[in-house]
Amino acid sequence: MEAEHIVRSYDEELRDLNDMIARMGGLTESQIARAIEALVNRNPDLAETVVADDERVDDLNYEIDEKATVLIALRQPMGLDLRNIVSALKIAADLERIADYASNIARRSLALSEVAPVRPVHAIPRMSRQVQQMIKEVLDAYVERNVDKAMAVWASDREVDDMYTSLFRELLTYMMEDPRSITPCTHLLFIAKHIERIGDHVTNIAEIIHYLVEGTRMRRTRPRGSTADHEVGSDAK
Amino acid sequence: MEAEHIVRSYDEELRDLNDMIARMGGLTESQIARAIEALVNRNPDLAETVVADDERVDDLNYEIDEKATVLIALRQPMGLDLRNIVSALKIAADLERIADYASNIARRSLALSEVAPVRPVHAIPRMSRQVQQMIKEVLDAYVERNVDKAMAVWASDREVDDMYTSLFRELLTYMMEDPRSITPCTHLLFIAKHIERIGDHVTNIAEIIHYLVEGTRMRRTRPRGSTADHEVGSDAK
Repeated sequence: MEAEHIVRSYDEELRDLNDMIARMGGLTESQIARAIEALVNRNPDLAETVVADDERVDDLNYEIDEKATVLIALRQPMGLDLRNIVSALKIAADLERIADYASNIARRSLALSEVAPVRPVHAIPRMSRQVQQMIKEVLDAYVERNVDKAMAVWASDREVDDMYTSLFRELLTYMMEDPRSITPCTHLLFIAKHIERIGDHVTNIAEIIHYLVEGTRMRRTRPRGSTADHEVGSDAK
Repeated sequence: MEAEHIVRSYDEELRDLNDMIARMGGLTESQIARAIEALVNRNPDLAETVVADDERVDDLNYEIDEKATVLIALRQPMGLDLRNIVSALKIAADLERIADYASNIARRSLALSEVAPVRPVHAIPRMSRQVQQMIKEVLDAYVERNVDKAMAVWASDREVDDMYTSLFRELLTYMMEDPRSITPCTHLLFIAKHIERIGDHVTNIAEIIHYLVEGTRMRRTRPRGSTADHEVGSDAK
């Protein structure tokens, strides 16, 4: 009886940890959505809310760290149990970085709302929808412990990189045509870069799921950083 | 005798982990130094070496993860011992990101070596020297478990942020004066941003040292992201 009680309680604790990751993921995804909304609708109040709410993501990250550390100390896990806990720690760290980028996008939208609007850049909300979808799917893959789903998300980051590359070219053209657009376009350039980096963090999470389920490290094989990419300023991970 | 043997061996293993972090830190710092040298001396061969050597940093990060996970599983640490191991995991993750930025700087220096040199921007090597010094000092603080030293490094990141802000303004001016400089200046803008982000990761490491030694989370109190910063495109952490 005693042993069974401990086992069930441990499962419950792991489930709590999973739930905390899912909650942090949902909050992070909403931070991105609201940051982009603040940008598109030139809504500084919403942007300020996003910046303020980053603290909530940081707090959840801290709670997950604490919970995981206590679980390791009390439960002395091994094998899959240990991978479960270490993976939660790592995924939380990636989500925290993603939320940082959302907060930075909100800050830049504040700066942009103070100047005349630049030519609408539809690619930014489109890129953002793509990474939001990737976050949703990678969190599903995490909850289901589904490596195939995680790998599909991982592969789809290529589309984000391609969108970034073409947006980069487009923004450079605007800047060359009209020097007054240089400052706002620079903000948009960084915003696009932030979204591209969010995509990279989602691929990190997909790799963590691979490690969690398979117990082995995934070697990155996707081609990155070709000479063509250098010319337009794309970064490799 | 047996217990003493186990204790000594555990200390040795923790020392191994510390040594691996120190080695990873040294390699990361050298990656930054060489990336900036490749940029300043327009040396594509060196830049390619930096990009290729990023794999070595990734491998060390993986070895540290493995070592830490095995130590948790076999030693079932608690309290300070557990904080030691979790901190090593977290510091390795920050060093891995820092090395990624060094690799990205090297990639951008490749693109820059293919175009006419832009006006020399002395601030970039200066910023880089500052973050390299911060990395050295934060690793010293880690080895010595010295919170005061870690906090001094943490506070000095303000200087990197200030250098970034003035460099950002300078680059915008060049771009407005001469549209042909827009593409290379955009690369320099991202390089400056990468260095600024490296400084942020160093402050993360300083915060981890605080947690490691004191056992409590450090609340960030340094003012960031004022309206003035928005205007020149600085990001908050």
